[in-house]
Amino acid sequence: VTLRTRLTERLGLRHPILSAPMALAGGGRLAAAVTAAGGLGLIGGGYGDAAWLAREFDAAGNQPVGCGFITWSLAKQPGLLDPVLERKPRAVMLSFGDPTPFAATIAKVGATLICQCQTLEHVRQALDAGAAIIVAQGGEAGGHGMGRGGMTLVPEVADHLAAHAPETLLVAAGGVADGRGLAAALLLGADGVLVGTRLWASAEALVHPGHHAAILGSAGDSTVRTSLPDIARELDWPAGFTARTRRNAFTERWSGREAELKEKIATEGPRYRDAFAAGDAEETGVWFGEAAGLIHAIEPAGAIIERMAEDAAARLAKGRSLIA
Amino acid sequence: VTLRTRLTERLGLRHPILSAPMALAGGGRLAAAVTAAGGLGLIGGGYGDAAWLAREFDAAGNQPVGCGFITWSLAKQPGLLDPVLERKPRAVMLSFGDPTPFAATIAKVGATLICQCQTLEHVRQALDAGAAIIVAQGGEAGGHGMGRGGMTLVPEVADHLAAHAPETLLVAAGGVADGRGLAAALLLGADGVLVGTRLWASAEALVHPGHHAAILGSAGDSTVRTSLPDIARELDWPAGFTARTRRNAFTERWSGREAELKEKIATEGPRYRDAFAAGDAEETGVWFGEAAGLIHAIEPAGAIIERMAEDAAARLAKGRSLIA
Repeated sequence: VTLRTRLTERLGLRHPILSAPMALAGGGRLAAAVTAAGGLGLIGGGYGDAAWLAREFDAAGNQPVGCGFITWSLAKQPGLLDPVLERKPRAVMLSFGDPTPFAATIAKVGATLICQCQTLEHVRQALDAGAAIIVAQGGEAGGHGMGRGGMTLVPEVADHLAAHAPETLLVAAGGVADGRGLAAALLLGADGVLVGTRLWASAEALVHPGHHAAILGSAGDSTVRTSLPDIARELDWPAGFTARTRRNAFTERWSGREAELKEKIATEGPRYRDAFAAGDAEETGVWFGEAAGLIHAIEPAGAIIERMAEDAAARLAKGRSLIA
Repeated sequence: VTLRTRLTERLGLRHPILSAPMALAGGGRLAAAVTAAGGLGLIGGGYGDAAWLAREFDAAGNQPVGCGFITWSLAKQPGLLDPVLERKPRAVMLSFGDPTPFAATIAKVGATLICQCQTLEHVRQALDAGAAIIVAQGGEAGGHGMGRGGMTLVPEVADHLAAHAPETLLVAAGGVADGRGLAAALLLGADGVLVGTRLWASAEALVHPGHHAAILGSAGDSTVRTSLPDIARELDWPAGFTARTRRNAFTERWSGREAELKEKIATEGPRYRDAFAAGDAEETGVWFGEAAGLIHAIEPAGAIIERMAEDAAARLAKGRSLIA
């Protein structure tokens, strides 16, 4: 079974599913597995590490994949873009910042420009930059984002695109973890979905087994939107963006004490990073979203994609039976 | 066109749509209009005013309607329940607090117990109390609630009910304002939807024209979750619940200065209430949710319900066309 939408036709996919370019977790093997399964995998360029990017593009092998960047971070190291473009990425996704400075360079090599947006103002900026695909990211998502819920953001962006940029495609992100989420996103007006947390919990993701174990013991209520992991890592995120991570000893201890964490960064910074490297699930950021409550096993990405598409198709086929 | 779900069959409705029992705004005329259109209207019992409730049940006339209460507030004035039960409500909805103390009384008169939930813990409590219908409310909703997004909360609650209480129905709330939202909610696993903001913006809602004008000029990004209106009204809401209202001069001025607002309540309380009564949209709480961006006209509730159901049916019928 395959689903056919404007996204599958435009990108030549079997399934209207992109993988989120998750910083650190979304490497080449995951991206390649998603593409091999009929979606499009995106390597997580994150905060920019040329050696990491080269290694992960190598790991993707011959599968066509794309790459995502944290836009405000890329602006500090614009030299990271050219080596990625030399790899002929199928798409480049820019999230969290003004995509305008990079749009022309990306267009020149023929890569599809995907812009992830959290507000309508972001959408307007992305359209001005020439985005071919808008990702409307709801606050359910793991990792960085803002607070709008997908149930209203997706149809509102769909209306905006229909009125102002009907050729621009819409992809829904945030909390989409199974066929129900994919089917719902399509009926809300999206052409496809971008999947983070569900693929973070895949065999190919670059995630410590200790963190994988943590998501299996977590529910959708087990996460929190917070700036604490960014403070601990001394990352200068623009105002308004927070990260959804597991609610754990780290987030509970420092919640409301952000200034104190900054003061104690000389000891707390290494403590956070050491706990992350060790796969500790309590004393560091554990990067998953509200979809945790829908995830009960770490599985190969290909199986996740195939089941998501098949289940969505089955639900869409049955939709007619609800009409009396 | 009508949609047939377990909710329409159980309650004998033409459309799987309930109106949110919006405090102050959801009176008898609105509830009756929703029932007349084929859904089920719920009068907003709010903080409890016996005279208001009597008047609004009168205003509903002969249409079968239900009534909703703010549970923690009802616990302070439990005597409000019996006069409502004497009106033979089709359903009683309890939101925000432990429903247990009222469940037996409601069951005795044969009214359907609906419990609105924001977390899985709330769901477990509602099931223990014997709820026939769980409303899973996402943070997109206007008015009081919590932060979970509907995209993940609805399927997670659906899974919980399937495993532990398969006869209990599920209704999705939060950001459902048109046929897309209704269709998406059904595919996420809900048996129907509860609609607040879209019906707040109806001709029958008890909303000042100044506030109706404000929603027409607002987008989904124009709201904020806040405790400020509760502080201004000296309402002692339990921890964890905030209210989504229009982001305006009042919320911008006092955000982060909650303690100061409490100190100045002798002048700021009356100022808030006067502005509310005058329909001022800047200096008081204006009670709508993220669905504001999907609403472009104040219309009769019946027309809203009919269009929502027809559009949802059309989208569900077309879902099959997405399968290649």
